[in-house]
Amino acid sequence: MLTVHHLQRSQSERIVWLCEELGVPYELQVHPRNPHTGLAPPIFKQLHPAGTAPVITDGPDVTIAESGACVEYICRVHGGDRLLVQPGAPHYAEFLQMFHWTNATLQAATSRVMWLNFALGPEAAAENTLAQMVRGRVEGMLAFLNERLAKTQFLVGNELTAADIMVVYTLTTSRGFSPMDFTGKDNILAYLQRLGRRPAYIKAREKGDSETPPLLGAVVEKFHFPGLGGKK
Amino acid sequence: MLTVHHLQRSQSERIVWLCEELGVPYELQVHPRNPHTGLAPPIFKQLHPAGTAPVITDGPDVTIAESGACVEYICRVHGGDRLLVQPGAPHYAEFLQMFHWTNATLQAATSRVMWLNFALGPEAAAENTLAQMVRGRVEGMLAFLNERLAKTQFLVGNELTAADIMVVYTLTTSRGFSPMDFTGKDNILAYLQRLGRRPAYIKAREKGDSETPPLLGAVVEKFHFPGLGGKK
Repeated sequence: MLTVHHLQRSQSERIVWLCEELGVPYELQVHPRNPHTGLAPPIFKQLHPAGTAPVITDGPDVTIAESGACVEYICRVHGGDRLLVQPGAPHYAEFLQMFHWTNATLQAATSRVMWLNFALGPEAAAENTLAQMVRGRVEGMLAFLNERLAKTQFLVGNELTAADIMVVYTLTTSRGFSPMDFTGKDNILAYLQRLGRRPAYIKAREKGDSETPPLLGAVVEKFHFPGLGGKK
Repeated sequence: MLTVHHLQRSQSERIVWLCEELGVPYELQVHPRNPHTGLAPPIFKQLHPAGTAPVITDGPDVTIAESGACVEYICRVHGGDRLLVQPGAPHYAEFLQMFHWTNATLQAATSRVMWLNFALGPEAAAENTLAQMVRGRVEGMLAFLNERLAKTQFLVGNELTAADIMVVYTLTTSRGFSPMDFTGKDNILAYLQRLGRRPAYIKAREKGDSETPPLLGAVVEKFHFPGLGGKK
């Protein structure tokens, strides 16, 4: 039996959404964050040395703690290869580009911005030349996305793929930790509204994060993430 | 014809090494860094909006600029699926975990350390609680790797896979930008020595980075990376 360990307000929301889109049977374990520190509960360290969310298990031999790997595993082993693009299909290379880009490049860059803000404090981060360079790179990535989404309904071609499942966390919930303003990025905003209306997305939020509204708008309120933003 | 655009001292060294391991025909374009800024030359922005290395092209329709995607594309389209692990094979889930982990988690975390050092300056970064937390996470990842490599010769099972191709840059050349000391991490060091003796690795370095010795030892000298480390 496939089990999905979901840490609320985290990258693991992707996996809940994926399972709902595919309609595969799965057991969902929802884990709230520690209300004082905002961090993951200790069970994640017991599940996998990475200590991060998501974690999936599938019988006694399979434990995976890495979004891209969980998504690929579930699509191939339980989803009949749906939401993946196969070699030889028209958008194969483009799919690989975007699927890997979402976490290894875009999420990595937005996370650098967040940690620079935490470590420097927001005022110093605003002034710091290197932090400006890092933010500039994220801006470039968002401009690239916004331009791309002028032509297509989805990240790759005209159907939902695993690349969409990967990117939405970074464009929504992640902004609760490190705000990004999408004012003027109309294609990204329309894309988020469109995906946010999918029954599987709505169902995943109800099951996994019913207390947190989906952050689909141009400007989002910062979550309360106690214990981190204040430290120096 | 498969063309590999390699920016010297960058993640694209993976792709040159991969092509040599697979023995696939490819045209190699070697691009030095700008000697004054240390940055990639403008051609990378023309090749792909990402502006980063690697970039591969394959005929008029395929351009990919994302390490994991380049590796997967070349293995599947040109390499007869070699160096990938297929669903149903014993180490499939573990392979997916490690293949995605290398860039989306390990490289992302080492890169956060580098940018925090650049932005704060090394002394302030040493004192900063948040920067310490980020370094602690990287230490945890290296301990996990070192323990794992006590039991296996390669990252996954007992054969070279695409996960090894992905991780070696982060454990070697990347340390020229942001030093990591591997003293005492004997399994990682033995792993690097072992992979560094592979004929394909040696050939890739000769073709792509003959001026830079492979950084396989416990302690590495920092590269000269002009224009970044000094800015505030």
